[in-house]
Amino acid sequence: MLSKNAIKRIAALRTKKHRKETNQFIAEGQKLVEDLLLSGINIKNIYHTAALAPLGLSKCVDVEIITEQEMKKISGLTTPTPVLAIADIPQHSYNETELSQSLSIALDDIQDPGNLGTIIRLADWFGFDFLLCSKGTVDAYSPKVVQASMGAVARVKIVEVDLPQLIGNLAQKGVPIYGTFLNGTDIYNESLTQNGIVIMGNEGNGISNEIEMLVNKKLYIPTFAKGDLTSESLNVAMATAIICSEFRRRKV
Amino acid sequence: MLSKNAIKRIAALRTKKHRKETNQFIAEGQKLVEDLLLSGINIKNIYHTAALAPLGLSKCVDVEIITEQEMKKISGLTTPTPVLAIADIPQHSYNETELSQSLSIALDDIQDPGNLGTIIRLADWFGFDFLLCSKGTVDAYSPKVVQASMGAVARVKIVEVDLPQLIGNLAQKGVPIYGTFLNGTDIYNESLTQNGIVIMGNEGNGISNEIEMLVNKKLYIPTFAKGDLTSESLNVAMATAIICSEFRRRKV
Repeated sequence: MLSKNAIKRIAALRTKKHRKETNQFIAEGQKLVEDLLLSGINIKNIYHTAALAPLGLSKCVDVEIITEQEMKKISGLTTPTPVLAIADIPQHSYNETELSQSLSIALDDIQDPGNLGTIIRLADWFGFDFLLCSKGTVDAYSPKVVQASMGAVARVKIVEVDLPQLIGNLAQKGVPIYGTFLNGTDIYNESLTQNGIVIMGNEGNGISNEIEMLVNKKLYIPTFAKGDLTSESLNVAMATAIICSEFRRRKV
Repeated sequence: MLSKNAIKRIAALRTKKHRKETNQFIAEGQKLVEDLLLSGINIKNIYHTAALAPLGLSKCVDVEIITEQEMKKISGLTTPTPVLAIADIPQHSYNETELSQSLSIALDDIQDPGNLGTIIRLADWFGFDFLLCSKGTVDAYSPKVVQASMGAVARVKIVEVDLPQLIGNLAQKGVPIYGTFLNGTDIYNESLTQNGIVIMGNEGNGISNEIEMLVNKKLYIPTFAKGDLTSESLNVAMATAIICSEFRRRKV
């Protein structure tokens, strides 16, 4: 039987403020929770209904069987799944030396949870080292982002940073800072390094002026559209897919 | 003043059955409606509120100013925009000779409207000639797909086809039929033709067995993930972005 306190505590994790305070986040769905268990992330609680097939629960601290009615109360999904987990938000350490030798993605105020979830999956698939999120980027541990990331949120080193300051320091050290702009060079013909930072900009405004000044490698994804009447730009998640692919194919 | 009949007629266009019968679809939002006007698509009606800035309406048949209350009645959006248009569904002709000389995308039962909208934008950006939709693919002119396509729905030649039969005929003619599979060859090192059909499969099940047998060029997008615990696959829209980019960069 789920206590009122437990319901309140879980509901509170839907706000960024409470996630920051408690350092915990919510994940729902059997596949997602299993992925979190496999990832080595620290899971605090698992709530599941009788409908659930057995999980590999070796790492789990506290498992509770609840009713479907109770699941409805704690789930944020329109159609609740049979399992909900509370996990610790991983704290990834990083330093500028490490960043200068890695290949990472930096997000300059990405707003859409679906886009962020997709970008986390891409960072995972293409083995990017860090995902650096500006203070204005949507919280990577918000329920919508966690769901959209399909478990990749537990495998990618996501860190919230003061982006202009960090990129400023890295640029000063000569680290390649990439970004896409209409006046950039054709990404298909450009030599791309296997270290550096790839900046992806806000959905509406692109990369901010403050960060643009720090970009020392301007790229452009050319269009092959017929006629002039094409989409003005690719969505940020699609652009990230193409850019990640371009960086990594040169690794082979 | 919007008649009850008009409201009923517009509401009916939210179902595929009525779109097929009337051969019309709905588009909402100033940018989207302007894109449709520019595309040369045949627009039947425009309904807008007083809040709307003037549109380029040269091609428009019937413009009506309505109240915000009326817009709420006909809009399918949670937050209605100041403009809604009814347009004819474009009828694109195609034949097998044309298809065998073009580069096209074929969708084998794509279910998610957001994915289809994204794929339409990609087909537009990368100048793919046709977008061939299987009978089981979500309707490209459903409101959610139209909104997600950001106007690209009016610029890409989208046709609904009997996919197994058409691909069977094309394969028999020796047209390259591409698809991604775990046992395919690395897309980065494969030579890709500038004609052929690229098959993208269903979100859950991938490419159907029936179509897989017709694929004569199996590709694979390699992962660069650290460790084994990566996402099992890329989302179909992300995979389409990477594949389109790979085909077109070889064109340069």
